[in-house]
Amino acid sequence: MRQRFENQLRELNLKLLKMGAMVLEIVEEAVQSLIKQDLEMARRVYQMDDQIDELELELENECMRLLALQQPMARDLRVIGTIMKIITDLERMGDHAVNIAKVTIEIGNEALIKPLIDIPRMAKLSQEMVNKSLDAFMRSDIHLAEEVAYDDEAVDKIYEEIYKELIEMIIEDPSITRQATHLLFIGRYLERIADHATNIGERVIYMETGERVEIN
Amino acid sequence: MRQRFENQLRELNLKLLKMGAMVLEIVEEAVQSLIKQDLEMARRVYQMDDQIDELELELENECMRLLALQQPMARDLRVIGTIMKIITDLERMGDHAVNIAKVTIEIGNEALIKPLIDIPRMAKLSQEMVNKSLDAFMRSDIHLAEEVAYDDEAVDKIYEEIYKELIEMIIEDPSITRQATHLLFIGRYLERIADHATNIGERVIYMETGERVEIN
Repeated sequence: MRQRFENQLRELNLKLLKMGAMVLEIVEEAVQSLIKQDLEMARRVYQMDDQIDELELELENECMRLLALQQPMARDLRVIGTIMKIITDLERMGDHAVNIAKVTIEIGNEALIKPLIDIPRMAKLSQEMVNKSLDAFMRSDIHLAEEVAYDDEAVDKIYEEIYKELIEMIIEDPSITRQATHLLFIGRYLERIADHATNIGERVIYMETGERVEIN
Repeated sequence: MRQRFENQLRELNLKLLKMGAMVLEIVEEAVQSLIKQDLEMARRVYQMDDQIDELELELENECMRLLALQQPMARDLRVIGTIMKIITDLERMGDHAVNIAKVTIEIGNEALIKPLIDIPRMAKLSQEMVNKSLDAFMRSDIHLAEEVAYDDEAVDKIYEEIYKELIEMIIEDPSITRQATHLLFIGRYLERIADHATNIGERVIYMETGERVEIN
């Protein structure tokens, strides 16, 4: 019984990592579609998101079947509960990637009002956080989970810089307002992705300690 | 066994409704704090959110215990899975209320750049959607669940109007940019709350039919 549970949990973890890899890819595609103003690529993001949604549902069903059939206790319960939360966070990250792709499509072929430097930086940091949070889960590593929350502060800082810069640009030249607010929203979506990674980190700490933390 | 399961499920549902009521209240408080520029009220929103977070964790644990101990099958599994998803959506609504309160505090006592009409309208509609989505769950009412998605279109429309109006105001007078983007974000948070209500509606349809839908 225990062995069977362990095996099923291992399969679940592999599938979770697959979902994580898909989310990293969708965020990359969304941001690249913006940078390259590649509308085809932006539209592919929508399809990728459908696949992520499917995988989430599959994982959720497997979690519940495992709970119902194996009657795990204490820590096992928290592990499965954590997986169920992680897949929700990952799925929402996919939604934010779609939001980014939507903005890309709205900007279309119109010249960008500024070279995009902070947005790719923010994207890279957020992706690293997602990676780290999943690593923390797989290794049950509380310290790594805490690191994610510190990284989140760096992301928030970049977002604040983007915000200030765009507002100053609007004040100088109000005709760029529309695109500037579009870019502002992109910053916001990336910030939300980083928040979801932080959620995952906090859940890993809860899984290990049974203590609920909110690091920020 | 069945009777015990039913009883525990009923208790779970009552607690879920309590959480729903708290979320309706926190959204109300957050929007009222903005309208009245009442910073004390805005700060209370933070405390209310802590209580919502606690209740979410409690409900989540009870869902998992019920899954593990009662070994429910088929539809029962979907019901508990739905509750677990609903509490996540409700918890996120609480976070968005906190985001609104944060903006209220940032605006502080500075004169508002416009009378707030659309934002309270949007808040009211979103709250009604939350109510309706929980009702749909309690009554297993697919039609009511579908209505929530239609209401979401109305919310999106108001948000677009707010967006256009604020951008025009910025173009006319760039000195208001900061507060205008603040209000824009409030619109975005309310739109997100409505989206979470839509998620709940979609989950209720899944619970009843086993079919995943995305209505928008």
